[in-house]
Parts: sequence; C-alpha cells; structure tokens
Amino acid sequence: MTKKEILVREALLGSNDKVAADVRRMLRQRKILGVNLMSSPGAGKTTLLERIAERLAGTHRLAVIEGDIETERDAERIRAKGVPAWQITTGGACHLEARMIGRVFPEIPSDLDFLFIENVGNLVCPAAYDLGESLRCVLLSIPEGDDKPKKYPKAFLTADCLLITKSDLLPVLAYDLEGVKREALDINPRLTVFVLSALTGDGLEPFLEYLHRAREKAAAPDA
Amino acid sequence: MTKKEILVREALLGSNDKVAADVRRMLRQRKILGVNLMSSPGAGKTTLLERIAERLAGTHRLAVIEGDIETERDAERIRAKGVPAWQITTGGACHLEARMIGRVFPEIPSDLDFLFIENVGNLVCPAAYDLGESLRCVLLSIPEGDDKPKKYPKAFLTADCLLITKSDLLPVLAYDLEGVKREALDINPRLTVFVLSALTGDGLEPFLEYLHRAREKAAAPDA
Repeated sequence: MTKKEILVREALLGSNDKVAADVRRMLRQRKILGVNLMSSPGAGKTTLLERIAERLAGTHRLAVIEGDIETERDAERIRAKGVPAWQITTGGACHLEARMIGRVFPEIPSDLDFLFIENVGNLVCPAAYDLGESLRCVLLSIPEGDDKPKKYPKAFLTADCLLITKSDLLPVLAYDLEGVKREALDINPRLTVFVLSALTGDGLEPFLEYLHRAREKAAAPDA
Repeated sequence: MTKKEILVREALLGSNDKVAADVRRMLRQRKILGVNLMSSPGAGKTTLLERIAERLAGTHRLAVIEGDIETERDAERIRAKGVPAWQITTGGACHLEARMIGRVFPEIPSDLDFLFIENVGNLVCPAAYDLGESLRCVLLSIPEGDDKPKKYPKAFLTADCLLITKSDLLPVLAYDLEGVKREALDINPRLTVFVLSALTGDGLEPFLEYLHRAREKAAAPDA
C-alpha cells in the first residue's frame, strides 16, 4: 500500500468512525440496543433473526437492517415475520459501513427495543468497520469446521459474543466444540460464548437473556 | 470512493493484472495447470485438495499455495499428504493478489502438472483478483444454503466451474440442489457444475477428469 493510499484509507475510516459514533449516540438516547451480526455466508444470521422475531413478537419492538451484495432476499424473510426491515445492497462492497447505516437511519422508528444489523456474509472485512452498534456478535457455524478462529482472528477479537450455530448438525459431524471455544477465548477472553441451533431453537434462550441484559446496560444513564 | 482513491486503486489493480499475466505465461510454458480455488471459510477447499493429493499420488506432480489471514494450518495438512505447499499469510488482507503468488513463484518446482492456489476463505473479495490461474473454481458447500449465488454473484460470474461440496449432508438438510445449479448458471451459463463430497470421495471422479482435460487444453501449443 502506498503512503497516499494509506492516507486516503485512514481518512475514509476516520469518517466511518465519526458516523458510527453519531449512530451509537442516537441509539442510546432512544434506549435501542444496536446489534451487529457478522459471519461467513450461510452461518445462519437470517434464520437466527427469524427465530428472534418470533420469540419477541408482541413483547418487544425490533427492526432489522440487512446488508448484502445483491438481492432483497433477507429483508423479505424478515418482513414475512412482521418485522420492519431495510435492505442495503452494497453492489459489490464486501462489508457494511457506518455511512450506509446513517443513510437509512432517518427511516428507522425511534421507539424500538432492538435494532439488528445483519452484515454482508464475510468473516474478514466487516470486522474492520464500526457501525455504531453497542453489541457485536460473530456467528460461526459448525459445518464451517473447528479450525476457524485462529485463521480469521479479527472477527473474534472485536466481537462481544460468539454464537456457535447449527448445533443440530453436531451429531453428524466430527467437531471439537470445546477446542473451538478454547481457541476463540484464547484470541479474546472477553467473549461470551453460546451454542445454539436457530433451526430447532435449541440454546436460543440464554442468548435472548443476554440480549435483554445488554439492552438494559446500554440504556442505563451512565452507559 | 474519491477520484484519487479510484486512481490509486486502479494503479494497484493494473499492477496485479501485469503480475498475473506473467505468472500465467510461466505456468503455460511449463505445461502446468494453475487452479485458483475460491469459497467461503469452511466450504472444504483444503479437504478437496487432500483428496486430490491422494488420488494423484504417484502419477502426477502437484504443489499447493495456501492463502490464509493467519496460521500455517492448511499448508501443514497438504504437506502431510506428501505434497509441497507454500503458506502465504496475508496478515489481515482478505484475498490473495498476484504479487503474493509472484513472490513465492521462484520456489515452486518447474516440473509440475498442477499448481493449486487455495485462496483466503471469502466468497466476495478474491473474485476481483486474477492470480495468473488458467482455471478458476468456486466452491459452495451445501450447509451454506441454497440462496447464495445471486447474493454473491461475482465469484460465480468469474469462475470456470462450480463445485457444490459436502454432498454427504444432502440427506440431513433441506436443500434445493437443482435450484442452486439453475441460479448459478443464470449468472454464468459457461459454468461447469460438479456435486461432490470431499469427505467420502463421492463425485470426485468427474472433477478429476475435468482437471486433466483442462491441463491438456492449457498446455496445448495454441492455448
């Protein structure tokens, strides 16, 4: 990378951080928990959001911002659950940036409990961009294999929690569950780890309780 | 992106294309088929290479360049099969570039039949970088779901073949195999599609035959 390119990049990243800080401040003022979901393609982010939508229906207000390279597919799946969803299609960009969130932000209702942001399916690049969330979750699906955390460390290093997903496939795959947890915690000892299946709902309850606690904490006056 | 950043980026990409052209010319002169494998993390690239190494042992000469953000893990797995492997750790970069290949190229034996390049696990960014390969393969694993081609079109658009992997999981997952093929071919009608399990070896044979034919074609005097 040339010095000029580094400067251009820093300026762009700097601007990202400023917009992210604005988004985070607005979410906190409104007592909304912003959650950024990051993972490889197909780790189960949208299916998890469908399950959360079903579980919180009638008791909590949520909305979803969907990030994808192309198509409205994920937003349509969320809307089918009765939850408002905004699709950002990045048209080639491999991650969401705070400015993309900033552009749809005026349309988001101000009386929400949770705003979920589903990032582009990519275990690498999204980790470098703060979107103004208060909680960052990385999903790692069991069929991806048990050697991933140290090969893709940044997502694990910057996340608050790790969701090991598709636990319904544990009986049919050779997988070192304890080894994966250990490796992820070795990268980032502050990670809270959950093992769940969004398909069957197994293990969803502890994660929902964690979301509620995080929301209370983020909405506290001194947060 | 500013005009200045676009210029800097174009210069960098231009330089990538020049190095890629050099790598491709050298591989063709030596009658080596260069194969670039791209996919999400955990789609089975390394396991496929292990199976290929076993099948071609004693009859063909191959080598592997492994791309990862961190760790030597994949190169170690390939070396355990008796195949020379070079690990490129990108230290954060989300894809391989031709210059990275160019730097290890002088160490690669000149009497090979196949040089496999396993890209960083990322279904988005690697598609934008020519590495000097003659054959580009995108892997899509069945547990990633059947809605991926149109969400991540560039990898499918730029590939010569699509390997739908982990077919051993078809019996336990709801998956529209014909729908995925149709969608991928809708993006790129020139794709040759294979369905296989690197775990069991099912479906490997037609892909190996395809590799042999591609090598003969790439090594032909008028290639």
